[in-house]
Amino acid sequence: ASIVVLPGDGIGPEVASAGVAVLRQVAERFGHEFTFAEHAIGGDAIDRFGDPLPVQTREALLAADAILLGAVGGPKWSDPNATVRPEQGLLAMRKLLGVFANVRPLKLHPRTAALSPLKPERTKGVDLVFIRELTGGIYFGAKTRSETDATDECRYTVEEIERVVRHAFELARTRKKKVTSVDKANVLETSRLWRSVATRVAADYPDVELEHQLVDSMAMHLLTRPADYDVIVTENMFGDILTDEASVLAGSLGLSPSASIGGPGAGVYEPIHGSAPDIAGQSLANPLGTILSAAMLLRHSLGLPDEAAVVEAAVDHVLEHGNLTRDLGGNATTHAVTRAVLDACN
Amino acid sequence: ASIVVLPGDGIGPEVASAGVAVLRQVAERFGHEFTFAEHAIGGDAIDRFGDPLPVQTREALLAADAILLGAVGGPKWSDPNATVRPEQGLLAMRKLLGVFANVRPLKLHPRTAALSPLKPERTKGVDLVFIRELTGGIYFGAKTRSETDATDECRYTVEEIERVVRHAFELARTRKKKVTSVDKANVLETSRLWRSVATRVAADYPDVELEHQLVDSMAMHLLTRPADYDVIVTENMFGDILTDEASVLAGSLGLSPSASIGGPGAGVYEPIHGSAPDIAGQSLANPLGTILSAAMLLRHSLGLPDEAAVVEAAVDHVLEHGNLTRDLGGNATTHAVTRAVLDACN
Ligand SMILES: CC(C)[C@H](C(=O)O)[C@@H](O)C(=O)O
Ligand SMILES: CC(C)[C@H](C(=O)O)[C@@H](O)C(=O)O
Repeated sequence: ASIVVLPGDGIGPEVASAGVAVLRQVAERFGHEFTFAEHAIGGDAIDRFGDPLPVQTREALLAADAILLGAVGGPKWSDPNATVRPEQGLLAMRKLLGVFANVRPLKLHPRTAALSPLKPERTKGVDLVFIRELTGGIYFGAKTRSETDATDECRYTVEEIERVVRHAFELARTRKKKVTSVDKANVLETSRLWRSVATRVAADYPDVELEHQLVDSMAMHLLTRPADYDVIVTENMFGDILTDEASVLAGSLGLSPSASIGGPGAGVYEPIHGSAPDIAGQSLANPLGTILSAAMLLRHSLGLPDEAAVVEAAVDHVLEHGNLTRDLGGNATTHAVTRAVLDACN
Repeated sequence: ASIVVLPGDGIGPEVASAGVAVLRQVAERFGHEFTFAEHAIGGDAIDRFGDPLPVQTREALLAADAILLGAVGGPKWSDPNATVRPEQGLLAMRKLLGVFANVRPLKLHPRTAALSPLKPERTKGVDLVFIRELTGGIYFGAKTRSETDATDECRYTVEEIERVVRHAFELARTRKKKVTSVDKANVLETSRLWRSVATRVAADYPDVELEHQLVDSMAMHLLTRPADYDVIVTENMFGDILTDEASVLAGSLGLSPSASIGGPGAGVYEPIHGSAPDIAGQSLANPLGTILSAAMLLRHSLGLPDEAAVVEAAVDHVLEHGNLTRDLGGNATTHAVTRAVLDACN
């Protein structure tokens, strides 16, 4: 399998190489052949090629079997008047690959749950997955700007809604058989369409329960009763906000993986944390989010569930017994934690 | 002063009459003349007049000095195919009155902080105010719906942004002198306009610090470091989500007031909780959110800050020493809590 690696900015290169190290070891242990090719994205790509998603990267992405991404962005490229921004590389990649489903599992590990801002009785039993629509909505709608005003259009087609909602139902079938669809159907036309499509799709999954939630209520329920949810599916912008809110529950952003999948080609796997330029290059970054993303890559893009499970078990082992990085209250380096996972993989 | 009372649905009438009782007592004690006129809104208005904001209500709103609202909505009127919905009454009222600034203070009382899902060390010292833009954005933009797709347009003019941002800076001047402006300027054109206007307005307030936050980061920071914020200003949809998320921090929705102000006429004051039809008519509702909204009414629409302070002190006293409603861990009725506030007002 050919894996494209996009190290990106800040701590991106450090965590990406941790992910690659784990994938290499898996290949060796299980007798697979993985090839790795690094390409530029984000601020790094702007600096080197003047483009946050250069043509060489695009071509490599389209030919890849799977993509492992570090992180993108940083204050260096955040001038509000800049005409080209690192995030554009991410958005262009999502569109190019047609990865319409952004999947973010949220599970609390006993040792890190203590770091959550929520009281332990609230987070007990949390085990949910967000599916955020990733290639439609207001992110990609028509935009205008004049001296006196600006507009952004949110548009959804039935097809865009249906495919991501189906994805949620398929996943729910393998889990607790409950889908929560989040919208703002009391105000938005796109949300009313969303709700009607979700309701129609649900008829094909009589074994799965469908519940509708308004986005504002959902923002509350994520804090008051997060353990009540299984699969949560929502549109792009709501998903952006709610997944970040939910990620805080885990105690550290450094632990959470994500997958962007559903397109005709490769999926993109990346930790949910940002590029954290303040700690870049110091081996302080937590590699576990990226390593768990690599596990998702094995499962979803390479069809290697056993290999994925080995990696996940290794991370669990390290979380339980190992010295962790600073964000998790330890003082281990990125390298040391990666080393511990590699050892636990054997 | 002439006060229009909109009891609305569910527990709305119960909490509204608690607010009226407190306002009557303030009038008596301080020698003011307040007149109260009840009008229909929401589901109640649909049932009685087939319109969530009937013409009699509209006329009364336009002539009022201030408006006290209970709550609107309920499952009875939530059929997704309904052509008329209770919430339309709220939206139409906001537009009619031009109340562009929705103000939601968030403060934790020691006794109720224990009910917060957040750990006490996180909520310590929280004292912030949200200013949500209330009459623009995607709520009021052009909408389309066809067989195959739907659209909602988010539009903001410079003027709409400037007036609400100025409101935030004026308020910050009377507080901790910090404004946090929330947007999604890395993706949306309306957000880039928002950010540029906020930056320009800030130049008129050299004594106030302006910070920009992306909405997804803000959703995290509200949980990880809520005490760092003073005045938070944002557009309509982001404000809807973030204010509801933030409201959970207080431990009970039943305590939090809101004011919708800035229009040429009267302001609207209402608790942030919903109509809670499951407990309606049983004297179980917490009246304190509405009573604190009445205090905001005294301060902002009637220019009676001393009277407002008396009401707030009375609520503080009851929170400290009184038997509270069920949502706050007590077993007092709506009536009993209202009675206790009235006693403490004397
Ligand atoms: C960088 C930004 C465009 C992006 C988004 O909003 O999609 C990020 O916040 C994310 O969630 O991946
Ligand atoms: C009922 C609904 C239209 C309303 C809104 O979203 O504005 C409510 O959620 C609120 O926040 O007041």
